[in-house]
Amino acid sequence: MGNCLVAQSGGPTTVINASLAGVIRANQLNPVYEHVYGGLHGIEGVLADRLYDLTNLSSNEIDILKQTPSSALGTCRYKLKRENEEDFQTLMDVLVKHDIEVMFYIGGNDSMDTVDALSEWAQKHNLPQRFVGIPKTVDNDLVPVDHCPGFPSAAKIANQIVHATALDYAAYTRPEVFIVETMGRDAGWLAASCCATGDVDLLLLPEVPFDKDAFLAEVQKKFNEKGSCYIVVSEGARYADGTYLSAGSSANDGFAHAVLGGAGECLKQMIIDAGVAPRGVVQSLSRAARSSNFAQSKIDVDEAYNLGMSAHMRSTNPGFTAMAVGVDRGTDENGNYKPLYTAKPVCEFANFVKQFPIEWALPNYQGITQEAIDYVKPLMEGEPKLIMDGAIPATIVPFNLR
Amino acid sequence: MGNCLVAQSGGPTTVINASLAGVIRANQLNPVYEHVYGGLHGIEGVLADRLYDLTNLSSNEIDILKQTPSSALGTCRYKLKRENEEDFQTLMDVLVKHDIEVMFYIGGNDSMDTVDALSEWAQKHNLPQRFVGIPKTVDNDLVPVDHCPGFPSAAKIANQIVHATALDYAAYTRPEVFIVETMGRDAGWLAASCCATGDVDLLLLPEVPFDKDAFLAEVQKKFNEKGSCYIVVSEGARYADGTYLSAGSSANDGFAHAVLGGAGECLKQMIIDAGVAPRGVVQSLSRAARSSNFAQSKIDVDEAYNLGMSAHMRSTNPGFTAMAVGVDRGTDENGNYKPLYTAKPVCEFANFVKQFPIEWALPNYQGITQEAIDYVKPLMEGEPKLIMDGAIPATIVPFNLR
Repeated sequence: MGNCLVAQSGGPTTVINASLAGVIRANQLNPVYEHVYGGLHGIEGVLADRLYDLTNLSSNEIDILKQTPSSALGTCRYKLKRENEEDFQTLMDVLVKHDIEVMFYIGGNDSMDTVDALSEWAQKHNLPQRFVGIPKTVDNDLVPVDHCPGFPSAAKIANQIVHATALDYAAYTRPEVFIVETMGRDAGWLAASCCATGDVDLLLLPEVPFDKDAFLAEVQKKFNEKGSCYIVVSEGARYADGTYLSAGSSANDGFAHAVLGGAGECLKQMIIDAGVAPRGVVQSLSRAARSSNFAQSKIDVDEAYNLGMSAHMRSTNPGFTAMAVGVDRGTDENGNYKPLYTAKPVCEFANFVKQFPIEWALPNYQGITQEAIDYVKPLMEGEPKLIMDGAIPATIVPFNLR
Repeated sequence: MGNCLVAQSGGPTTVINASLAGVIRANQLNPVYEHVYGGLHGIEGVLADRLYDLTNLSSNEIDILKQTPSSALGTCRYKLKRENEEDFQTLMDVLVKHDIEVMFYIGGNDSMDTVDALSEWAQKHNLPQRFVGIPKTVDNDLVPVDHCPGFPSAAKIANQIVHATALDYAAYTRPEVFIVETMGRDAGWLAASCCATGDVDLLLLPEVPFDKDAFLAEVQKKFNEKGSCYIVVSEGARYADGTYLSAGSSANDGFAHAVLGGAGECLKQMIIDAGVAPRGVVQSLSRAARSSNFAQSKIDVDEAYNLGMSAHMRSTNPGFTAMAVGVDRGTDENGNYKPLYTAKPVCEFANFVKQFPIEWALPNYQGITQEAIDYVKPLMEGEPKLIMDGAIPATIVPFNLR
C-alpha cells in the first residue's frame, strides 16, 4: 500500500485547511493510503523533502484544523517551469522515496498549472504517480467551476465589514468620502460581492475601465444627492490602457504579477484634490478578508472540506490524474442553492482567469445587477459552530513552518 | 409625568446602541418617563430640535438595536463651549419645550464634559433639568472606571484579526514585515490588547516614546532570530518630542485633535528604507475594529446594555445629576471576572485621559506583561447570539440621519 501527499500553494484562504482536513479524514474513513503526508510550503518544501505525517491527526485536531485560517502547511509562490526538467526529476525522486502514489495540490490557477505540468511529465515518462488539484482562491477566478472555496467566506466578511462601516459612516454629518479596498488582482468578484448589502454607492472593478472624469462626476452626484458616497474599489482597478490606479508599486510576487495595494488611498486623494469632498476614510480589507475564520460561511467550509474528501475518494480510481475537483451550482426541490460536486480536467483550471461578467456590472460604476446579488448571496450563508479558545476561534498549526 | 432624552456622541462603537437599547427597555419596564426621545446627531441635533420618539420600539426592534453597530441616533463632534451661553439657552429651550426632565448622553471624555457643563449650567440657573453620562469609547481612556463599553469588542475583533493574519503571515517564507495599525489617539489600550494572542513581536504605543534606531534594531533582531516580525502600532505612536509617526496629516476633527492614520505605512517604509526587510504588508483595522457587530464580546454587549438600564434606573432618584454610570472590576466566588455597576461624578470622566500603564508595557517594544493580558482577556469573552439577516447580523436604524 502506497502513500499520498497534500500541499498548499498561493494566497491562503480561511477554508484551505478545511480541504486539507477533508483529505486527512477521508483517509481515516477509508485508509487506502498508508500515510497522508503534508508537504511544507507547497512545491518548494516538497522539492526540499520537507514532509510531515498527518495520517493520525486526532478527531479534535481535524475539527480545529478545519476552522484554522491560512495555510497550515505553509504556502509558496514557487513556479514550476515546464522547461526546468531538473525540478520535475527532484520532485519525482521525493515521491518515489516516500512511495507516494497521489499528490493533492490545493491552490489557485497557478497551482492547477503545476498539477497539469506534473501529470503531463509523469505520463510522458510513463511514471505511475498521479496528481489531483483541489481549488481555492478568494479571487473566485477559476474558469470551469461555479465558484471557488475561500471566496464565499471572504465575501461574507467583506459584506459584514461593509455593512457595519456603512452604518458607522452614516452616523456622521461631516462631508467625507468612504472607501473600501478589496483584494482582486484581475477579477472583481470580491469587490463586486460587497454590493450585496445595498450599502455601496459606487464600485470600481478591474473589468470596467476607470474613467477619472466620469467617475468623479458620479461621486459629485452622490454628494449632491445625499451628502455622502460609499465606494468599493478592487486593488486591480485600472484605466483603459491597463495602468493600475495604484501604479507606483513595482515589486512583484514571483509570478510576474504586479503587487497591488493603495488603490483606495489613491482614489481618496483624487477625490480630495478634485474638491469633491474635503476628507476621506480608507478601509483596506487586506489580509483580514481572506483570514476571517471568525466569520466563515458554513456553505464555504462544508464545500472546502467536502472537496478534500471528494478528491481523496475519486483518487481511489487508478485512472484519476490530471483532474481537479470543484463545485457547480445546483438547485434543490425548493429552488434553493445546492452544491454539485464535480471533477474536471485540471488544464481547464490552469492559468485562465474568469472575470466578473461585465453584464453583471451596472453602468456608471453603480454596483451590480440583481442576478449578481442572487449569485453571491446563498454562498455566504450559515455560520459554522466554532470551537473557541477564549475570545478567539481555536486554531492549530502542527508544523514548524519557519 | 415628564420625558427623557438620549443622544450619542463621539466615535461610534459596536455596543453604543446596546446602551441606547437599555435606556429604552428600562423605561418599558418602569415607565417613569412618558416619552423616551432620541436626539439625532448628539448635541447638534438636540440644538436643532431634531428629536425622535423611541418610547414604543418593539421588543424585536430593541433586540436588533442592541446588536446594531455605530450610533443609531447619529453622532457629532460638536463641542459645547462653556463660554457660549447661547447654546446652553437654546438647548434648555428644547428640553423645556418637550418637557424633558433628564438627558442621557452616551459618549467619551468630551461628551462627559458636555454633561458636566450642562449640569453646572442648570444648577447655576436653578433649573430642574438633570444630565447623566453613559460612557463608551473603544479608546478605553476614561479615568474613573475599570474599562469602557466598546473597548472589549474592539479588542476582540482586533485579537481575532491579529491571530488570523499572523497565521496568514506565517504561511510565507519570503522576508516581509507585517504591520497592524489600530485606533488609539492618546491611549494605547487597543493596540496593547492585540498582544493577548501571543502573536505580536513588537508593539508601539503612544505612551512609549518611539526611538527609531532602537526600534529598527529590535525589528532586525526578530528577522535574525526567526525571519519575520509582526508589529502592532497605535495610530497615536509618537517620538519623544510628541511628533506622531504619521505626521503629515494635519486636518482636525473639530476638537483640535490631530486626525491620525498612516503610522503603519510610515513604519513599513522606514523598515524597507533601512534595509531590514525588502517588503511589508500593512493591515489597518481602521473603522472595522469599532464596528465589529459580527464579533462582539458578550461581556461588552451585556455591560453596555446594563449601563443604559442602570442610568435610567438611577435617574429615578431626583437628586441624580452630573453623574455617569460605569463598570468597576469585581471577582466572583471562583475568582472569575464580574462587573460591578457603579456611578460617579461625571467631572471625573471629563477631559482626562487614562493612558495604558507604562509598567504594563515590556521594555524594548516587546509587548505587554501578563498582568495586562489578564486585564483584557476576560473582557473579550462570550459571543452573543446574533439575529441574522442572511449572511450578516440584522441591524436597525429607524432614523433618517442624513
